[in-house]
Amino acid sequence: MGNKHKHATHIDFDTTPYRVNPGKAFHLRKRETYVDGGLEKDDGKDAFQALSHRLVELQENLYAEQKRSLLVVMQAMDAGGKDSTLKAVFGPIDPAGCHVKSFKKPSDNELAHDYLWRIHRNTPKRGTIGVFNRSHYEDAATVAVKSLAPEKIWSKRVGHINDFERMLTDEGTTIVKFFLHISKDYQKERLQRRLDRPDKHWKFNVADLEERARWGEYQDRYSEVMQQTSHEHAPWYAVPAERRWFRNLLVAKVLVDTLEKMNPQPPKADFDPETIVIE
Amino acid sequence: MGNKHKHATHIDFDTTPYRVNPGKAFHLRKRETYVDGGLEKDDGKDAFQALSHRLVELQENLYAEQKRSLLVVMQAMDAGGKDSTLKAVFGPIDPAGCHVKSFKKPSDNELAHDYLWRIHRNTPKRGTIGVFNRSHYEDAATVAVKSLAPEKIWSKRVGHINDFERMLTDEGTTIVKFFLHISKDYQKERLQRRLDRPDKHWKFNVADLEERARWGEYQDRYSEVMQQTSHEHAPWYAVPAERRWFRNLLVAKVLVDTLEKMNPQPPKADFDPETIVIE
Repeated sequence: MGNKHKHATHIDFDTTPYRVNPGKAFHLRKRETYVDGGLEKDDGKDAFQALSHRLVELQENLYAEQKRSLLVVMQAMDAGGKDSTLKAVFGPIDPAGCHVKSFKKPSDNELAHDYLWRIHRNTPKRGTIGVFNRSHYEDAATVAVKSLAPEKIWSKRVGHINDFERMLTDEGTTIVKFFLHISKDYQKERLQRRLDRPDKHWKFNVADLEERARWGEYQDRYSEVMQQTSHEHAPWYAVPAERRWFRNLLVAKVLVDTLEKMNPQPPKADFDPETIVIE
Repeated sequence: MGNKHKHATHIDFDTTPYRVNPGKAFHLRKRETYVDGGLEKDDGKDAFQALSHRLVELQENLYAEQKRSLLVVMQAMDAGGKDSTLKAVFGPIDPAGCHVKSFKKPSDNELAHDYLWRIHRNTPKRGTIGVFNRSHYEDAATVAVKSLAPEKIWSKRVGHINDFERMLTDEGTTIVKFFLHISKDYQKERLQRRLDRPDKHWKFNVADLEERARWGEYQDRYSEVMQQTSHEHAPWYAVPAERRWFRNLLVAKVLVDTLEKMNPQPPKADFDPETIVIE
């Protein structure tokens, strides 16, 4: 085929610089948003394709094994690219074994329970990948910034979330968390695009401008929460998200690495295929 | 009316001897099963009636307030009297505000999630009382005794359960837990009754005899789990359950005391009833 980028499918770049290290200082402000990881865009796109194929295989093995599950948390400021990342990364995966749950404003019934109630209901079954588009982290971060609950309530939630994710891990769910990191200027450009294009108006929400006005507070609070909830068993990645091909590549790479480490195995056949004759 | 037991409705006996004290040694073996608390049966029954009325009132206030909830956990060995206690104590309460959930053998879908998944789904809404007939404690106790999961799995569950109940408490659920305590001889008598009475055959299960054969192991493991999970905010009570009128009285008294302490308040009217004329 003469694909000049074929070598790129074997790309093995290092994802650790993007990880939030447990027990170490962390602030989004100190992390770049426009990053290419030293790669050419075409090579990066080829590498993404290869990772995407591998992700499909690994998910099939996870499904066949039926013993463990993978929970992926996706957070970002508005216009950070959550939807398009999820579409690019999880689009090719068999939808029977991968469910995206978007958490919106809680319903009356959801509000009548603790904030983890609706989250727990949506954790993935054994054999599947569960993806949270927004998550319980809004209950610790957004709720704090907007004072939707008193401090004596939200201040305990980082602890609850650590306990909850520890329990899920102990019981067979592997967890990985991504924060798509963009600059305030980039957000302006993306929001303006939504205003300029009538086909994107549905994505624009005037309330987003209030959150934009408190950009610094959000960055501070998310940095704090991510630092306190990133663990070996449930790490956060701060994904530089302004180069979209690199953003997708990094997310796919982390997922493939995570699943490779889980190493799901289809169960051995309980019959000898040599002895079976299909008439 | 000439009710000679009227004074008994104001009975105020001490429930603390039946409590499992956080941080103190505890074993079911050292607790009595046949107890009358120094009361006459008739007085005890009258007192139960009075407490039952008060429970109905308190539940109405909890429902009107719509801010907090009460979770009641009921555990026992087979034939310990869970069903009849729940019927006696919660029967008179408005069913719109009180839900009993019996946890049986988990379904395939429940088993495909962590053991707290089905528990969390059934926690009570604000304004209501949720009653668990069996509970997540089976996942820490029965699972251990019967080796339904390896020790490295079940040994972590006491910690998960403490974390989970702490979170529920922080978010507005008050928790109280009862273990209906009977002797092995008493169980024999009750199981024999099920065999002798055709109308009770449906309650008899040959598998219960296996659990009976491991009586000591169950008593040990439940004692350990109760000692490790009894807290000021989520106490266990070891209820002597061989005198059924006393068992019901003690459970009702603890519930009334718990709700009195919560002191639920119907919201103030946002209108002045004096100024409203209904034509």
